[in-house]
Formats: sequence, structure tokens, C-alpha cells
Amino acid sequence: MTAKNAFYAQSGGVTAVINASACGVIETARRHPNKIANVYAGRNGIIGALTEDLIDTSQESDEAIAALRYTPSGAFGSCRYKLKSLEQNQREYERLIEIFKAHDIGYFFYNGGGDSADTCHKVSQLSETMGFPIQAMHVPKTVDNDLPITDNCPGFGSVAKYIAVSTREASYDVRSMAKTSTKIFVLEVMGRHAGWIAAAGGLAADAENDIPVLILFPEIEFDQDRFLAQVTEKVQMFDYCTIVVSEGAKWPDGRFLAEQGTRDAFGHAQLGGAAPVVANMIKDAFGYKFHWAVADYLQRAARHLASKTDVEQAYAMGKAAVEMAIAGDNAIMPTIVRASANPYAWEVGKAPLSEVANVEKYMPREFISEDGFGITPACREYLVPLIQGEEYPPFEQGMPKYVTLKNIAVPKKLNTAFDL
Amino acid sequence: MTAKNAFYAQSGGVTAVINASACGVIETARRHPNKIANVYAGRNGIIGALTEDLIDTSQESDEAIAALRYTPSGAFGSCRYKLKSLEQNQREYERLIEIFKAHDIGYFFYNGGGDSADTCHKVSQLSETMGFPIQAMHVPKTVDNDLPITDNCPGFGSVAKYIAVSTREASYDVRSMAKTSTKIFVLEVMGRHAGWIAAAGGLAADAENDIPVLILFPEIEFDQDRFLAQVTEKVQMFDYCTIVVSEGAKWPDGRFLAEQGTRDAFGHAQLGGAAPVVANMIKDAFGYKFHWAVADYLQRAARHLASKTDVEQAYAMGKAAVEMAIAGDNAIMPTIVRASANPYAWEVGKAPLSEVANVEKYMPREFISEDGFGITPACREYLVPLIQGEEYPPFEQGMPKYVTLKNIAVPKKLNTAFDL
Repeated sequence: MTAKNAFYAQSGGVTAVINASACGVIETARRHPNKIANVYAGRNGIIGALTEDLIDTSQESDEAIAALRYTPSGAFGSCRYKLKSLEQNQREYERLIEIFKAHDIGYFFYNGGGDSADTCHKVSQLSETMGFPIQAMHVPKTVDNDLPITDNCPGFGSVAKYIAVSTREASYDVRSMAKTSTKIFVLEVMGRHAGWIAAAGGLAADAENDIPVLILFPEIEFDQDRFLAQVTEKVQMFDYCTIVVSEGAKWPDGRFLAEQGTRDAFGHAQLGGAAPVVANMIKDAFGYKFHWAVADYLQRAARHLASKTDVEQAYAMGKAAVEMAIAGDNAIMPTIVRASANPYAWEVGKAPLSEVANVEKYMPREFISEDGFGITPACREYLVPLIQGEEYPPFEQGMPKYVTLKNIAVPKKLNTAFDL
Repeated sequence: MTAKNAFYAQSGGVTAVINASACGVIETARRHPNKIANVYAGRNGIIGALTEDLIDTSQESDEAIAALRYTPSGAFGSCRYKLKSLEQNQREYERLIEIFKAHDIGYFFYNGGGDSADTCHKVSQLSETMGFPIQAMHVPKTVDNDLPITDNCPGFGSVAKYIAVSTREASYDVRSMAKTSTKIFVLEVMGRHAGWIAAAGGLAADAENDIPVLILFPEIEFDQDRFLAQVTEKVQMFDYCTIVVSEGAKWPDGRFLAEQGTRDAFGHAQLGGAAPVVANMIKDAFGYKFHWAVADYLQRAARHLASKTDVEQAYAMGKAAVEMAIAGDNAIMPTIVRASANPYAWEVGKAPLSEVANVEKYMPREFISEDGFGITPACREYLVPLIQGEEYPPFEQGMPKYVTLKNIAVPKKLNTAFDL
């Protein structure tokens, strides 16, 4: 069998370690030139395939590829572009196959979350029926930690570490100020559907850090009265209270907290955050002075504080996807299997894409404390291993030295236009 | 001369390195037991002195005091409490002297910003006229970097590093997403009067990182039309644009951007941030998808990313204050003197408090680019040395191991009530 080219693309929201997976894919491919001739990356994800805008990764030095391991974001560009269903838009899938044929691509590595797993699955099925079978492998990635089967998702551990550390640091700060000034600190974190990231705020407290943290999960219907009662109880005990609110926290009627009817000067509904809403609610009830923060992209881009475990797992998923494909697997996602909880040990497993696609994993109820505002010991046991270890990027002149690739285009072979 | 006790207090907003100054004060005092018998810390700043709530730092182990060097926030509690002028409230100053007499305090170390320097100055003057002279030394601290005479202020370098790194990381993120999703990222940073922290966002870009960053300084009147023109120009060139907005950025009429008439569901003026205002303004003008973050306490508590230079300078200021006091100085603030720009070298200087109190240092106009949206090479030359070096805290189980002191109270001697 002659070597085929591989296509690799990054999909959806990027993370601090998705490039570590890219590094795993490309370094592993380079070690198997008899199987994989070259890795072509999609410029801006799958759009790069649809528009025949492929990046020739062979033009990047080994050093540049190695630097992907510690560079946050998507080095080849990502996109939010969900392929429609086969029934709705078969031409998109046909176009992909056409591109893959033209560039002699035999491997499809798609690095993303649940939607991408679905696309990856369809590509695998369709290519077979269209007489140009390629091996489609999904490389898991999502800060939301909501993919099924795998014990956790690359990208999540680093966000969790960032949120846990930031919550602890800010709590020390507000504790210092509480006597005469700020008593309430509200941190808004990502997670529109699942509360995994918010849960990580609970790690700010531990046996040596008696920090009052209340968490507002998307999985728990927001009860304003019970929440406010908890806040004032904490303030009476500790003089202050830290609140970690998920962007996905909802009112009983299903509206996001962030949408609480705020209007700008022109009467437009304001796309505000949940944090100011929660902070102002507390101020209105008790008059406590507050501060609030919205971490937004900072949390998922913070490679400077990545979890070593997360970096290693992200790399391992990329590496495993290539090794599995070379060994003949198809329509598979490598997974992280927790072999042992304490001491933590993990190994690489695999899941068929048919079982991964379109399944979201929420926080199990037993990970959320009975009152709904905290995490249980079981949740802590799950989370703590994922934030273990530091793997700092190199710094130069006080700043992290991240790589920006050359991203040189592969010459087009079809050169036909394609409307997205 | 028999040894006297020293009083130390933390004042105003805390920082990632104010405890490093406390460490410098206490460790240095411990090396001079013939001059300083014990260091009493004010619980919650100067309020601890007024209410005779002193903390006995001799009850803390050497290890615990050493750990202050890498623990953010104010270990003894801080406060926002400005002593009134002598004319308005002499009884506060008299109370301080009364407490100092009762506890045999001969040294007053006040760790804070401009207001605190003023208090420290008055304490020094009054104690002399009241026949109980104590040596009052100010230890500089402020993330705002707005104290005069000193080249820079402990606390600022670490915030600057955090903002520079976070801006770079988030810019990599939005660059990855720009093709089909987010094109605008807005980061709101501290600095109500001076734009030093916002300026640090400009360090995200350098020769190897061609990142479009627009900065909104408090020193520059906001010109919406010119700003929007710059934004769209950047988006056309780079596909994306990062904006760093100071919380102190103002409309031409003097209102903060953050106060742009936003109302909550009940019609209350909303204490929103400047970031969502700027983001929505861009969306309204061009329809670009945006993300925004408000760093708030995260930026000044982020000891995990402190500048080594900043930590060393913070420690040195505490140490110098004690050494100067022991040598006979009074009403002095140790300063950081830039001995050489390139290579950067600094030494400890001193400034009389009469020249420090109530003077704010803004960004000089020549540090801001002509168009008002960026930093000049001179500004870069000033800032870069201040973020040099990393001095990570120890981590345990994936989390930074910060110290919480025992903070045991000194037995009261007066036991008289004092109404704040």
C-alpha cells in the first residue's frame, strides 16, 4: 500500500491544548512516512476542505510543530460551521470527497466536540458508499467536557485549573477587602449546557482553604430566594462570599440569567453577562459591595496555566488517532479511560463514532451537593486528577513564546469555486 | 536604645505582591531584634490600629512568613478607610498615637498607595508634635502605578504581565475563530484614572506577534467615530481586532463608558462594565460577532503569573523601609530607581513623603501613540522590564499552595471602644 495524505482540521471553539493534539497528529504522522505522506490541515477548519484551502504542514519545521504543544488556540484556524444533514445538503459531503480524491487523502482527522464527531461519522459513512473510503478519526476536544464515553475531554482540564486557581486567588483578594469594602465576588465561567467548568470553581476550597464558594450550575434551576439566603449566611460566617456562575445558569422559565431584560441606552436587549446580574441582585437584596469578572476567552486560552495532565492527554489523543488509523481503524474516537482513581492512572481507549455523535454528557446529580450550590466529594475526586501538574510554556522577555505557523497553502488541483 | 515594636498595615486594594512587601518587612525586622522587638500587623489595615485589633506576627513561623512572598492578597486584611484631615478629625490621629504608646510602637510601616502615603505623612508629623515620635515609613503599593517619584510601583508589574499575556492568549484565540465566528475581543482592565494597566495590553503584540490591539485609555477622550473606523480597518486587514479598554475610559462629557445608561429590568442604572458597552457598539456598527471579558480581581490576584521583577521589588521595598527606619529615617517612602534601561537595572532610592502624598502620575502623552489607540516604543521600553521573569508559587495537587496566617491577636492594653 502506498502512502496516502492525511487531512486534519480543528473545529469549534478552540482551547489551550487543541494544538497539542495537532502536535500529536503531525509528529506521529511524520514518524510513519510509509503510511502517511503528508498532513494537510484545513485552513479555518472544514471550510478549508470545502474551499480547497489546504495548508501544507510539511513546510513547517520540527521545532515549529513541537511548539504547538505549548501554543494555545487553533494554529490552522477553526470554524463554527456545522455540515448539514446528508438529506439537506449532500453536495457538501460530495465536495469533501471530491477534494480528498484530488489530494489523495486517505485519512481524515477531525479535532472537535460533539457536532464534529457527527460530521466525522457521516464523512466516514459517505466516503465508503461513494467508493472512496477514507479512515475518519475523531480527536476529542472540548472545554465543555460533554463528550460521552471518554472519561474527560482534552481542553477541559486546563480550563478547570484556570477557574479553580483564579477562584482561589480572587477569593483571597475579596477576603482581604471584606471588612470595609467588597464582600461579594462573582466569576462568570463558560458552559452553556453543562456545569463542568463551574464545578471546577469548587476546587478553590479545600482542607487548607476554607473559602465560601457558591456555584450556579446550568443543570440546577435557579432559585433566587434560596440562593440569596445562602449568600447572606456565608457573609455572616465568613464576611465574604465567592460565587461562580455558569453562563448557562437559567431562571425557572428557561431564560438565561444573562438575559434578565437588561436594556442599553437605545432600548436594545443587552447581551450582558450573568455575573453582573447576580452581583446586582445581591446588592439589591443586602447592599453588599461587589466585584465581578467574566473570564470568557481568557479561561480557554490560558496556556500559561495549563494542566500538565490535560496537555499530555491532548497530545495522546492526537497520537492515538493516527496510530489507530494506521492500524486500520475507522469511524473511531480515541478516549481517555480512567484506569485508577487514586492514584490517578489513565490509558487510551476507543469509542465508535456512532455512539459518540450527538450525545451530551451533563454533570451527574451526585456530583452536585444536595443544596445545589456546591460539589460533592465524588465530584472532587473526579476533577482533581484532571488539573494535576504544570507545564509552563517557554517565556522570553517576560512573555510566553507561542508559535505562529507559516501556513503555506497546498497548490489547488480542482480550483473550482464552492459556495458555503 | 531598647527595641521598640513596629506596626505594619496593608491599605487599599490588594495586589499579587503586597504580601511580598509584608514578607520583606517582617523578615528584615526579625533580623534586627535589638531594634525591632515585634511586628504588630493591623487587622484589616489601619482599622486594626484604631480599634486596637493588632496581630502578633511573632506567632507565625519563619516558613509561614516566607510563604507570604508567593501568596497574593493582603494576609492581615486591608481596608478602604481614609483618615480624615487633621482639622476634620484629630481624634483619629490621637487614637493612633494612644495605641502606639500603649503597645510601645516606635515604627509605623504603611503599605499602600497615594492616600496611604498622605496618612503616613500626617502620622509622622502629628506623633512628633504630640510628644511620641515614631518613625513613619511608607511602603509603596498600587496596581495603578500612579505614585510619583518612584519609577514604578510594586503590584503593577504583575498586573501588567497578566494583562499582556492574557491579551496575547485571547488574541490567538479570536484569530482562530475569526473566519466564521468571533472577530472582536474586548478585555476590560483596571485603572480608573491612569492607563498604565491598559497600556500593558499593547505588549501582546511584538515583532513576532503581529496582533491588532486597540487601547482605550482614561487619559484620551473617547472618540466613537475614530474608534469605530480603526476597528473596521483592523478587521479588514487582520480579520479580527482585540480591544483593551480601561475601566476609566470616558465619553467627551466625562461620563465613564461603563455608565452608558444601561438599565436593568427594574429600571435601575446598571453598574455594567465598559467591555460590553464597547462590544455592543461595534456590533451595532458593523455586525461583527464579539466576545468580551472583564478581568477585575483576577488580574490583581494572579500570583500564579506574577512578574519576578515585581516580586523582587515588592520585597525590596519592605526590606528597605525597615532598614531605613532602623538607620533613622522618618517620613520616607523607599522608591525604585531605574539605573539603566537596557539592560534593565534598578536600585533602591528614597522620597520624602511630603513630595509623594496626593500626587498622581498619569501616562505621559509621549507613551501613547499619536492616534491615541496604542503605545509608543518609549512606553514599551518602560514597560517591558517590569514584566520580566517568572516566579511561580509552589503547587500541590494541581493548585497553588498559598498561606493563610494564624493571625493571633495581641492582648489589648487599652480596651477602650473607638467608633469608626
